[in-house]
Amino acid sequence: MPTFVIVGHRVRTDDDFSLNDLPGSTGRLDVLLRCVNSAFMLSNDIRKDVDVYLVLLGEPDPPRTVHFKGGGLKYLNPDERSTGALVKKALAEKVWSEETGVAPGVFVSKRGLAEVLGDNPGRLVYLREGGNDVREVALSNDDVFVLGGHEDLTSEEEAIIQDGRETLRVSLGLKSLHADHCITLVLNELDRL
Amino acid sequence: MPTFVIVGHRVRTDDDFSLNDLPGSTGRLDVLLRCVNSAFMLSNDIRKDVDVYLVLLGEPDPPRTVHFKGGGLKYLNPDERSTGALVKKALAEKVWSEETGVAPGVFVSKRGLAEVLGDNPGRLVYLREGGNDVREVALSNDDVFVLGGHEDLTSEEEAIIQDGRETLRVSLGLKSLHADHCITLVLNELDRL
Repeated sequence: MPTFVIVGHRVRTDDDFSLNDLPGSTGRLDVLLRCVNSAFMLSNDIRKDVDVYLVLLGEPDPPRTVHFKGGGLKYLNPDERSTGALVKKALAEKVWSEETGVAPGVFVSKRGLAEVLGDNPGRLVYLREGGNDVREVALSNDDVFVLGGHEDLTSEEEAIIQDGRETLRVSLGLKSLHADHCITLVLNELDRL
Repeated sequence: MPTFVIVGHRVRTDDDFSLNDLPGSTGRLDVLLRCVNSAFMLSNDIRKDVDVYLVLLGEPDPPRTVHFKGGGLKYLNPDERSTGALVKKALAEKVWSEETGVAPGVFVSKRGLAEVLGDNPGRLVYLREGGNDVREVALSNDDVFVLGGHEDLTSEEEAIIQDGRETLRVSLGLKSLHADHCITLVLNELDRL
């Protein structure tokens, strides 16, 4: 099943933020919330065959990973604030290396990017500018798509991605796009397979 | 330039709503706010060559149209709440048939769908399920794209669209998609022209 791993370098790793100021108080969690919307939301339905990992690397205690499993989701709505409330709830939990369930289909753990990729053995597709155009590669529903949220991945993160594993570098068009728009475009390609 | 006209049948036409509950208190303005994001937001930039009209038809005093002109926008941010605040400001204005400016690039008027389409003479592209696939038609940057926000257009609105004017009916894929995701997909097609 398609899996999206989105890295938020400055996104807070506790619940000390305001749902009334998601861009300002969270380290740009709002970007990742829009990614969750793009990954799951269909008109009157949820994509049950999609997995999303938000890898949060901001203060005070990185990493945290919030994992949304489409097959189990029950209370996901399309707006930013309600998904922000789910993440806030996840970040209020004590975390361990194993995942803790916080709501149907929503889990939190102390894993970082390397651990999340280790748990997902599919081919990696690294979404960033300057890659092969998405319409000229053969995507698969088993691919693991990795992308930065508000910022590009660091060279250390790129090294994790390329560490001994088949990796495609793919871009979605000629313009520089937001992460959530990239996910919409990838899923449309997969819908067309 | 590409123009998007999005109809919100139940979206309130005054400012008596809470930014803390956009889906519940506005008649699903949140859907249209995400359309504004999709239409304008690039990574670190705004699409200056796009126009968006939100045609609001809910209580208490329909219609209201909030018009975003990409060329003039200054204070547009990607999150739902800040764009919701711009629309709230627009809906606090006294309105006339002519547009009133409420912020750089943001205007409000008492126009409805027929008047907005009358102001925009390009070919109409009606985005809805069951149309021709977007990859099998020749879109143009001068097209005027019309779509429903939270609900499909009514038969009366479809009659306005098809009234003596060249109209394409186009869909974006096999799944039933949210309006904002449709706009992302259309703009990607136009970027590829």
